[in-house]
Amino acid sequence: MESIVAQKVRQAQALLRDHEMPLWIVQFGRETFSHPEPVQNLLIGTTVTWPSAFILTASGESIAVVATGDAANVESVGAYTRVVPYVHDIGPALRQVLDEFRPERIGLSTSTDDDLADNLTHGMWDLLRTVLDATPYTERLASAGDILVALRARKLPDEIERIRAAIRVTESLFAEIETLLGTSVTETELAERVHGLMAARGVSPAWDGRYDPLVNLGPDPRIGHAGPRHDARLERGMVAHVDLGITLDGYSSDLQRVWFLPEDATTAIPEEVQRAFDTVRGSIEVGRDALRPGVAGWEVDAVMREHFTGGGFPEPEFAFGHQVGQTPHDGGAIVGPRWPRYGSRPTMVVEKNNVFALECGVWTSRGVVALEENVVVTEQGGTYLSSPQHRIISVHQAS
Amino acid sequence: MESIVAQKVRQAQALLRDHEMPLWIVQFGRETFSHPEPVQNLLIGTTVTWPSAFILTASGESIAVVATGDAANVESVGAYTRVVPYVHDIGPALRQVLDEFRPERIGLSTSTDDDLADNLTHGMWDLLRTVLDATPYTERLASAGDILVALRARKLPDEIERIRAAIRVTESLFAEIETLLGTSVTETELAERVHGLMAARGVSPAWDGRYDPLVNLGPDPRIGHAGPRHDARLERGMVAHVDLGITLDGYSSDLQRVWFLPEDATTAIPEEVQRAFDTVRGSIEVGRDALRPGVAGWEVDAVMREHFTGGGFPEPEFAFGHQVGQTPHDGGAIVGPRWPRYGSRPTMVVEKNNVFALECGVWTSRGVVALEENVVVTEQGGTYLSSPQHRIISVHQAS
Repeated sequence: MESIVAQKVRQAQALLRDHEMPLWIVQFGRETFSHPEPVQNLLIGTTVTWPSAFILTASGESIAVVATGDAANVESVGAYTRVVPYVHDIGPALRQVLDEFRPERIGLSTSTDDDLADNLTHGMWDLLRTVLDATPYTERLASAGDILVALRARKLPDEIERIRAAIRVTESLFAEIETLLGTSVTETELAERVHGLMAARGVSPAWDGRYDPLVNLGPDPRIGHAGPRHDARLERGMVAHVDLGITLDGYSSDLQRVWFLPEDATTAIPEEVQRAFDTVRGSIEVGRDALRPGVAGWEVDAVMREHFTGGGFPEPEFAFGHQVGQTPHDGGAIVGPRWPRYGSRPTMVVEKNNVFALECGVWTSRGVVALEENVVVTEQGGTYLSSPQHRIISVHQAS
Repeated sequence: MESIVAQKVRQAQALLRDHEMPLWIVQFGRETFSHPEPVQNLLIGTTVTWPSAFILTASGESIAVVATGDAANVESVGAYTRVVPYVHDIGPALRQVLDEFRPERIGLSTSTDDDLADNLTHGMWDLLRTVLDATPYTERLASAGDILVALRARKLPDEIERIRAAIRVTESLFAEIETLLGTSVTETELAERVHGLMAARGVSPAWDGRYDPLVNLGPDPRIGHAGPRHDARLERGMVAHVDLGITLDGYSSDLQRVWFLPEDATTAIPEEVQRAFDTVRGSIEVGRDALRPGVAGWEVDAVMREHFTGGGFPEPEFAFGHQVGQTPHDGGAIVGPRWPRYGSRPTMVVEKNNVFALECGVWTSRGVVALEENVVVTEQGGTYLSSPQHRIISVHQAS
């Protein structure tokens, strides 16, 4: 299989032609192991130590201007067919490459609204302007943020396959979690067990391991991504909730599941819990159906939000969905309300082959009832990549 | 022990007073797991998902303005005594905090010259200006890069102790590597063995594991951080070289060692190798001696460079030293020549309690002869934290 980076480089060159952007400085960075930039795994494929410029052109060229000490690493990746090494100063080497193309516009990987397209530090932006001082190029710098958003969001078949593989592992972890749920295990212990299961499968948490898995055993007054509690155990009659994402081969999942621990074998699911589950499940389902090419993210959020509040629940303080890919919050169009917090992302448009996590949840007196599913956008709407949770699962007491 | 983050927060507040900077927005970031910023482990202590501002003041306050979903995580770290949550928009909450202090200057973590003080993306810089539009604060924004450089470079006793612990583990790994060297193991195999030994000790590579350890078994025409070769083995009469750094408890080491595999038990070290070793060893020793508070980095480099070229070797294309701490290239003053590549860092001044890696090497016909030692700066010059390699070690054939 051709590497993902090589495939994305070709996809990027085609996007440059669509956007009439002749040349794109994809990354202008340094010490990218300590300071990894979002495009690193998408368009670079390795780390560099010294100031480096990775350049793609609409004409199909891929050029890396790097210090001699980084040249061998970049060559070994193979995605940049021309490696231009320098010793003392990146400036002359970079200007010489630009002079070959004399681009009318030069794209930079910068964005105020999308963190994953916001790939350039302010210091390096300043440095680039210094390097290009007294050339015509300072006046030709433009944001290529929209190109980077599209590139990351339009998943290739190999990318969707990797996300699917990450989801499969996540679902197998949920199956193991189900066997561990009972009155004896604490949130902290459960999170540790999951970390052990991840390590055994050679996968890593998709976000900060202190909050992945996010475990709620029974009611928890804390909102959001708080870590597991040392003293919280699942009591009978209460709900267990886990938010879990893993990264496998560079691609991520992000799913949530709920369970109920009955008082005894005959206890039915409490009405409050069942009603919450049905509303949550229904909100995701209407979102999946609405997730079609051409719709804006906020429109899908509005459909979900209406369904959710229609179930008698207060309007939530979160967005109902986000993209998933190399990261569990994969930038681009967000299924969220048009709050300033989300910038322009709710107005960005959903496209075919975007992959979304749709999520919804509510705090009940028995615990958190929340679900999250991963779907890929097709012409007919969203198609589940995960096996959606259709009913709340009663677990039996683990010893 | 008080956490490193809490200690560095207090150190930062004292530095603000020294620099007459009333208020510092240490981090203005988002999605800091996918996009980790250099101050994260130094002054934050956790990751956040949504746009967040971490603020320190000269008056001793520490305030985090974060989305409700991030509040519990930030509170649990305890380094920020006031957490201001928001739902829709960070703008009003941030402006309200600034209005409490009405600072005449607002420091930002930005730098063109030091990657680890270059903590703000260009997109977030733009967003901050938008958030502060129509306030007096847009005109009061200033770089706090020099404060951040000093803060990272002035190691606290607990930080030096952690670096020392990382060095001790690295030296134990070198002792194991020595028993593995022979004609049968390839560079790739040796690197894999070292990764296994790291995992068994619960430590991780200090830089990209594809290039850490950097292994040279015999001559290698490649310069710099290239990965191990699948087919290269150490032949008799040749030199083995390993550049290895590890991270333990958030602090790093960066050391290099060399060995010689004799033709038989009676073979002396070849004159070419011995001469290279003596020059390399001597260059590091003159550097250690010159590394005193008040000297500029380039002056130490010049002393080392002169010793090295005086040994009859061509002027190298690298700097002779860099700082070590939370990262193996820890920003600030560099022991390097005044090339544009290094920006202002060679003219930055060495201070007490800075920790440096001093390094030097040369390609011989028998292989790479290079050393790297870690030293802490005292009033009397550099003091080795590592146990320096004083002579080239002959290894016996491993089976």
